[in-house]
Amino acid sequence: MRTGIATVCLSGTLKEKMQACAIAGFDGIEIFEQDLVTSPLTPEDVRKMAADLGLTLDLYQPFRDFDSVSGDLVAANLRRAEAKFKLMARLGMDTILVCSNVATASIDSDDLRVEQLGQLAALAGDHGVKVAYEALAWGKYVSDYEHAHKLVEAVDHPNLGTCLDSFHILSRNWDTAPIEAFNPDKIFFVQVADAPKLSMDVLSWSRHYRVFPGEGQFELAKFMGHVVRAGYSGPVSLEIFNDVFRQSDVERTAVDAMRSLIWLEEQSAKWLDAASDGGTGAGINAGGGTQAASRRRYPMELATLPQVAEPAGYNFAEVRAADTKGLETVLGQLGFEFNGRHRTKDVQLWSLGHARMIINEAAPADDSTADATHSTAPAIAALGFDVASPVIAAARAQQLKAPAVPRKSQANEEVFQGFAAPDSTEIFLCQGTSDGTAAWTSEFGEGLEKPAAGPTAVIDHVNLAQPWQHFDEAVLFYTSALALEPQPFAEVPSPTGLVRSQVMATGDRAVRLVLNLAPLNQQRKTYQEHIAFAVDDLVATARDCKARGLEFLQIPANYYEDLDARFGLAPGFLATLQELNLLYDRDADGEFLHFYTATVGSVFFEMVERRGAYDGYGAPNAPVRHAVQYDHLQHR
Amino acid sequence: MRTGIATVCLSGTLKEKMQACAIAGFDGIEIFEQDLVTSPLTPEDVRKMAADLGLTLDLYQPFRDFDSVSGDLVAANLRRAEAKFKLMARLGMDTILVCSNVATASIDSDDLRVEQLGQLAALAGDHGVKVAYEALAWGKYVSDYEHAHKLVEAVDHPNLGTCLDSFHILSRNWDTAPIEAFNPDKIFFVQVADAPKLSMDVLSWSRHYRVFPGEGQFELAKFMGHVVRAGYSGPVSLEIFNDVFRQSDVERTAVDAMRSLIWLEEQSAKWLDAASDGGTGAGINAGGGTQAASRRRYPMELATLPQVAEPAGYNFAEVRAADTKGLETVLGQLGFEFNGRHRTKDVQLWSLGHARMIINEAAPADDSTADATHSTAPAIAALGFDVASPVIAAARAQQLKAPAVPRKSQANEEVFQGFAAPDSTEIFLCQGTSDGTAAWTSEFGEGLEKPAAGPTAVIDHVNLAQPWQHFDEAVLFYTSALALEPQPFAEVPSPTGLVRSQVMATGDRAVRLVLNLAPLNQQRKTYQEHIAFAVDDLVATARDCKARGLEFLQIPANYYEDLDARFGLAPGFLATLQELNLLYDRDADGEFLHFYTATVGSVFFEMVERRGAYDGYGAPNAPVRHAVQYDHLQHR
Repeated sequence: MRTGIATVCLSGTLKEKMQACAIAGFDGIEIFEQDLVTSPLTPEDVRKMAADLGLTLDLYQPFRDFDSVSGDLVAANLRRAEAKFKLMARLGMDTILVCSNVATASIDSDDLRVEQLGQLAALAGDHGVKVAYEALAWGKYVSDYEHAHKLVEAVDHPNLGTCLDSFHILSRNWDTAPIEAFNPDKIFFVQVADAPKLSMDVLSWSRHYRVFPGEGQFELAKFMGHVVRAGYSGPVSLEIFNDVFRQSDVERTAVDAMRSLIWLEEQSAKWLDAASDGGTGAGINAGGGTQAASRRRYPMELATLPQVAEPAGYNFAEVRAADTKGLETVLGQLGFEFNGRHRTKDVQLWSLGHARMIINEAAPADDSTADATHSTAPAIAALGFDVASPVIAAARAQQLKAPAVPRKSQANEEVFQGFAAPDSTEIFLCQGTSDGTAAWTSEFGEGLEKPAAGPTAVIDHVNLAQPWQHFDEAVLFYTSALALEPQPFAEVPSPTGLVRSQVMATGDRAVRLVLNLAPLNQQRKTYQEHIAFAVDDLVATARDCKARGLEFLQIPANYYEDLDARFGLAPGFLATLQELNLLYDRDADGEFLHFYTATVGSVFFEMVERRGAYDGYGAPNAPVRHAVQYDHLQHR
Repeated sequence: MRTGIATVCLSGTLKEKMQACAIAGFDGIEIFEQDLVTSPLTPEDVRKMAADLGLTLDLYQPFRDFDSVSGDLVAANLRRAEAKFKLMARLGMDTILVCSNVATASIDSDDLRVEQLGQLAALAGDHGVKVAYEALAWGKYVSDYEHAHKLVEAVDHPNLGTCLDSFHILSRNWDTAPIEAFNPDKIFFVQVADAPKLSMDVLSWSRHYRVFPGEGQFELAKFMGHVVRAGYSGPVSLEIFNDVFRQSDVERTAVDAMRSLIWLEEQSAKWLDAASDGGTGAGINAGGGTQAASRRRYPMELATLPQVAEPAGYNFAEVRAADTKGLETVLGQLGFEFNGRHRTKDVQLWSLGHARMIINEAAPADDSTADATHSTAPAIAALGFDVASPVIAAARAQQLKAPAVPRKSQANEEVFQGFAAPDSTEIFLCQGTSDGTAAWTSEFGEGLEKPAAGPTAVIDHVNLAQPWQHFDEAVLFYTSALALEPQPFAEVPSPTGLVRSQVMATGDRAVRLVLNLAPLNQQRKTYQEHIAFAVDDLVATARDCKARGLEFLQIPANYYEDLDARFGLAPGFLATLQELNLLYDRDADGEFLHFYTATVGSVFFEMVERRGAYDGYGAPNAPVRHAVQYDHLQHR
């Protein structure tokens, strides 16, 4: 699959954008007119720079408001088009995007459009230019891709084809199957964009909220499957108008963009394989040989990635701190056992049942360089996941452009494959075992006696704060590199603003990772994050923790009154909840009990008990947690 | 008018919110349930604190999903309601908001609703509670305020009334005139919210984008006029769900909120007066005596403010800098005359025609406290406006809670009335004169000879960058305190994100002020701002500036090619534009020529020539300006 991206997706100057696209590995780019008009580079400079960077210049765009106009505008439009065709010759470009008319269309006649597009195609032919005509979802008379294609067929000129843009098609909920019947020679270009399902006017939605494939809710693999089956083999190019991407670091956004196309390519191959398999959805994983062969019938080559199943669970969580005293105290009070220090590194291992915590004794901060993002106050630094094959999983992540972070190690020590997540948390891939143990733990506490089987406990979920620039990127990252599935989105009020919360999870819920979008005026790592452990009997656990002196997050009495009004709990149970600062939730699937510890640095801990098939996180209680934590921060 | 505000409008804890409301001068508040549930304050604490702060507790809210339910839910809902009634007794509150059912409604029957609301009213009566029933715009069966009122009338119980919320009524475009016929004894509460006109689902619109009155586009004065005429005299309370306000400084947001009600009170009085005047719109300004008398017929008292006309023009603009050399050079090259130093202060006066610039020689920055927002690099510090009566205008601004900034002065010097705008720019009110001179200039350059009448020039517009937290506040501020009118909103792409641009102007365009919402990662005063001067002959002016060595912002050649493609300009004219780095725009009303200087600190200057009735700012050229400035910033 030839990959492309429109310069409008990125921040910075045309030069910066082109360099970032080359570094991220794109095959080609679309030049957005405004990026050229505002650039000090001449068209010849741009042409040479693209050649030097190994980028093809695939599409010049957009040319607006051409068709359906009255007679006096035709000549002016053709004059304007010819100026652009001459410019394209200097750029060495041969394809221009022409959008269906929004502003100046005054005559609704397909005959007239065929005549006018024919004139444009003839002029384009004189200049060796190919015109890709696209139906904008809000085009005045042409807003449907089949209508645009019908006009192209009617003109029947070698220099006129259509451009298919997934946003304009899927935002209107149009069936994409008819694409398969299109003549591939008439599909001049394909643009892909994803978007969250929003109910707002389609123009605002398009201009501000598009995201890269895999970051939204459109069925893009299916769209691409139809495009491949039609026989199209040209560039598949991103055209994403997004308020955040426009403000973010250009190189980083380009890598996020490239990841989305690599992922889309794989998903498209899977969709084709499943479809060729009679729609059983067995796909690549179930003996992909036949399906892959059937894919070879199509001109577009689709590369696939090393295949991984979803992770089997958390292997460990790691917290880093210059002063580890507070962490040691809290873990001890939670019932964790100290399993010893690592034989060569300044790290400690603590465990409770199958929940393993590493305390990384970071060097104290050098005051001259200390800032909020590089604090050495306790913070979540790394997460280990159990996967079937760490090497395959690492190879997949690397092909998805995840930056590698190999863990330093000595001889005879286990080497973890790892990579950095968008929020800089380190993700390590570990070999899971059927009994829930981990071989690497033998590197800790030589001479220490291992504790007997303790209480049943596992890491239930981890909650990471995401900076606003990287929230969508993080969703795609965990989807594509770690095979987690995004769950429905929630918003929780807090005293400093709404917190947007995106759960990523495995189908069996063995791994639950919560991404919280911190309010704008808060930075990653100053915002509080946490690790939650699941136990069988929360009330008993809480009593034990209390006896060991744990500092619970204090829940206001008003909460329990409201709980009673909402649920009508048995008085004894309600009193127990209140006595132990436990929070409670209930839904049709089951019940949820949980409590929080006080915060150490930017980390706190949660203990949960899930009763029945309760699948949530106590969202109705989150505002209480935020409010109490905020109150503590104000007064410490 | 009794003023109120719901605690959900503000950031922080319940205690912080209550304190901020008292400081801002509200009469009462609505307690949003979640703020109480998450608070460590007992209901008795809240009651005492409100009394100590002089705040009435006007409304407990919300109680959700009561009506239209099937039999088994009725008892549970009444039980839940009774728990809240008891809580309200402890809070000393007597009114609760009950919203029309969204989630659990299953039976669409007005008879059933009358029965269920009757049961609720009877229970409320037992506890001395008044139930204010409100139609949510997205209520399942009840979404229309007239429907809600009809149910209230049918129940006919002294403890059941209705709550009118402007958002739920105006978001659905419902006629507000029928409110006048409502029995005032059945209107238990009135909530007001404004909103920008957005086409999105009404729930998202309501939950995220409400703004304070005067910051959106709803006809609130008319809504309030009908409410007053109905005979309602209870609290008028703000209920604003806004993502930004939730994150902003609580005391500041409370003042913004209070300002919006003061302004709404005045606008409502004007609407009533105009309406009583037979709809001529003559209003308060045209001999308000009679109308004010007619307003006295209604129980609600509406206070008015000192009345001002819109400002007649800019009197001066002031730039502050520790090192003034660069500014002096640019102003000189632009053709400004140095009129001398002030007799007692470290400020210089420069002028070009009627455009006056003050250079304030700020003390050099103390490095230990220097930061981006208190830089002493050249920055726009103050604006002077010509008004009919500075004292009346200052009194009005003060009543609208504008923080005063009296200018220090010696004997025999003019004292400017002034106040600080939300972005901290100082606004001074000056006495305009018919010949465009200013008396205070005689305090400058003693002994210097005044220049003879120079070229015709005026300040055309000033462009100020606004931080994201205070954009809506700034719109209301300039609307209410300075009588500027918000114009339609624009968005301009820049290399670091979309720039949102809000023009505030007088009807005759003598004052044009552009508020730009800087991209999120840029701070006020590091983002570039500018002052534009209008001249009669821009080409001649540019030639003179060039001869004086002015550094123009360099416009890329690609821009002129595109200009030619768009407008087909005469070759000689196009060559002149390109030679002099002039930008050009044209619309149905006229033409616009302009150029920019290089940036000094965070300030640059623009020279413009308006031909015909051109009323814009060259918006199509703004991306070029942003891109070139960005490029310079990267390379300096």
